[in-house]
Amino acid sequence: MSRDIQIGLLGSGTVGTGVLQIIRDHQKDLAHQVGSGIQVKKVLVRDMNKYQDIENAGELLTDKVEDILQDDDIKVVIEVMGGIDEAKDYIIRALKNKKNVVTANKDLIALHGAELVKIASENSCDLFYEASVAGGIPIIRGLTEGLSSDRISQMMGIVNGTTNYILTKMSQDGRAYDDVLAEAQALGFAESDPTSDVEGLDAARKMAILASLGFSMDVELEDVDVRGITTVTIDDIKYAEQMGYALKLIGLAKRDGDRIELTVQPMLLPAKHPLSSVHDEYNAVYVYGDAIGETMFYGPGAGSLPTATAVVSDLVTVVKNMKLGVSGRSIVPPLYHKQMKTHDEVQSKYFIRLHVKDQTGTFAALTSVFAKENVSFEKLMQWPIEHQIAEVAVITHTTTKSVYERIFAELEKMDVVVAVKSSYRVEGGNAE
Amino acid sequence: MSRDIQIGLLGSGTVGTGVLQIIRDHQKDLAHQVGSGIQVKKVLVRDMNKYQDIENAGELLTDKVEDILQDDDIKVVIEVMGGIDEAKDYIIRALKNKKNVVTANKDLIALHGAELVKIASENSCDLFYEASVAGGIPIIRGLTEGLSSDRISQMMGIVNGTTNYILTKMSQDGRAYDDVLAEAQALGFAESDPTSDVEGLDAARKMAILASLGFSMDVELEDVDVRGITTVTIDDIKYAEQMGYALKLIGLAKRDGDRIELTVQPMLLPAKHPLSSVHDEYNAVYVYGDAIGETMFYGPGAGSLPTATAVVSDLVTVVKNMKLGVSGRSIVPPLYHKQMKTHDEVQSKYFIRLHVKDQTGTFAALTSVFAKENVSFEKLMQWPIEHQIAEVAVITHTTTKSVYERIFAELEKMDVVVAVKSSYRVEGGNAE
Repeated sequence: MSRDIQIGLLGSGTVGTGVLQIIRDHQKDLAHQVGSGIQVKKVLVRDMNKYQDIENAGELLTDKVEDILQDDDIKVVIEVMGGIDEAKDYIIRALKNKKNVVTANKDLIALHGAELVKIASENSCDLFYEASVAGGIPIIRGLTEGLSSDRISQMMGIVNGTTNYILTKMSQDGRAYDDVLAEAQALGFAESDPTSDVEGLDAARKMAILASLGFSMDVELEDVDVRGITTVTIDDIKYAEQMGYALKLIGLAKRDGDRIELTVQPMLLPAKHPLSSVHDEYNAVYVYGDAIGETMFYGPGAGSLPTATAVVSDLVTVVKNMKLGVSGRSIVPPLYHKQMKTHDEVQSKYFIRLHVKDQTGTFAALTSVFAKENVSFEKLMQWPIEHQIAEVAVITHTTTKSVYERIFAELEKMDVVVAVKSSYRVEGGNAE
Repeated sequence: MSRDIQIGLLGSGTVGTGVLQIIRDHQKDLAHQVGSGIQVKKVLVRDMNKYQDIENAGELLTDKVEDILQDDDIKVVIEVMGGIDEAKDYIIRALKNKKNVVTANKDLIALHGAELVKIASENSCDLFYEASVAGGIPIIRGLTEGLSSDRISQMMGIVNGTTNYILTKMSQDGRAYDDVLAEAQALGFAESDPTSDVEGLDAARKMAILASLGFSMDVELEDVDVRGITTVTIDDIKYAEQMGYALKLIGLAKRDGDRIELTVQPMLLPAKHPLSSVHDEYNAVYVYGDAIGETMFYGPGAGSLPTATAVVSDLVTVVKNMKLGVSGRSIVPPLYHKQMKTHDEVQSKYFIRLHVKDQTGTFAALTSVFAKENVSFEKLMQWPIEHQIAEVAVITHTTTKSVYERIFAELEKMDVVVAVKSSYRVEGGNAE
């Protein structure tokens, strides 16, 4: 057994604490796998006074990043501090000082992943970021190793635990969005500023990372068409369920030939679809490959120990690569040039819910709008809701985004349409 | 781009055909990843005449294994011929000739995996077998890499597609075992001799492989306590469902402290458990780790292309390792000494279904048998079925296998018990 591998940890929040715990509790198993002990030499914290009751605090803690970046004994830097600019600066300096890096920072990787990977490669260092997508679920290895021989054509992910928790509670308890959000915040499942989660931005970052790897192209965050869950109502969920569907916030990355589309939005999935059974704060990524067909990775998408599992598993690979002398050599640059689909190429079914005047001719007028565009219905429901107003919910057969946008605009202008209440994409096949 | 990597393929059945197809169809993506082309130089077949209409048959095919094992240009041997003795002999000779090996052979790995891995290591060759468990699902990488930092405490697998298909159809269509088995054979989902599948032996082999890796110990096939699905009835499935459970053939590997248990048997799982939604011929492995909590890998457990995906993904890793000069160096020997639990240590809930005499005192007599052993009921149903006979179904709270065996023996002897119809373990928590 050779000398302990020395680690520097940037950040000591939720994930950092989990990393320290796993390295301590699983030391024997880790040492067996990598052939030497693993020791955290320094932890960068913002406020030294906060941690004075930790054992060894004086030796272990520092508020000067140079104590880690300039320490030649430290061979691996784990970045779990979050944020963009400072974290990026530290990671680049660590790589340039020939330190391997493991990060859990999805914001940073989604925005600057390609640049950082290039710097890692130039410095013969590893840069791994399994924890940046779907917490403990080993989806990045799944794509880059387990399915490395296949051609991935589609990925559908429930990759944000907060929004999945909110939608689950809305569906199960029949409670309104604001109500469930407030509860989630009280329980610590949602941030006090939940914007990044509920507006779909967090999921978009993860989908950009997955699409880059799964499609082997440089996908950027702005390629993702994003819509959050803030306008989802109980009615939408209940009507979807009556029609055999579940309403979920889905990150969708689709490839047809050389062209891709990328979106995060609330979608209807058939109730029997495996993603529809992913409840509460759990995450799952459904992957379609040409050869394998469909496969799914399921697990906890956040939390201290689950996320730390992914970080420390990356660390195991980093240390193994160090011992084999192959650090920085597993990087595969993108093979394909990114080409986004136009609205004429994006194909989908759609759900739309309308309030219409409950009078003769309404239905004929509505259906003629769809018929004019050659779009037929898979399912249709109509029932009266109040004086002279009826509610209509429709699921169309597959059409293009351009055609649907024309239909939508037309419906909004119609005299007989009192209000377009909601509209969602429908993916994952037909309901029973 | 350097010279093509030359492959020898042993076997040209279902999986072999898939391997050839993926290497051909995904050549560009594969070459990009590994840095050179991949070419199948020779395919070992039993009967040359069967394949004469294949392009290049004369050059590509051989019925002499030496054409592969003695060819110095061939650096990787893929074994997809199946069987034990011959395949083992060929693999050992390939490894001794410094050829890396990828195999899909679960029977061989379950029986001789440790020996073969040792020979691979001694010859600085890789030996990978992702395809041996759960077809295309990258579960072996999941355990050995994605969850490498965690301590796995439990694995529950639906790892045999044939039996899962049969149980799904029995449940959905209310049809008898024999009837569904005959249909599955006609459709090609079941072998003409289905023994290995329906008796649980195939699943046992896969669980032995998973337990060896997940628990880092040398688990052998005979450590697995096996019971198949041949005696499962529609009634069992229906009563389980009424009590909130699904009946599935589950491979269970459990570790408590230093002691493990390993079994394959039909079990009841709560209907909301993620494994309960795994239908038809699909496979899934549910993994519990101390740090990650629960995670699941889902996908096609068999089939030409899905299984070939796992084989060729292994091939990608083999070729990458060759180029990095680290072949045979990823092998981690077992860390722990295997210790099996005794029947006093195996804990579980149980379902038991009885036909009893419908007379005063029966119920009191039954419950006293359980009460004497301090075993209480989670759920209980009783209803009359024919003249003076009632059916009783019970789900117990957790007890040990020893205690349950005593209760079972006692019940079988009782006057008021006409017949013990069935008995199953209940795992995965409580039903709602």
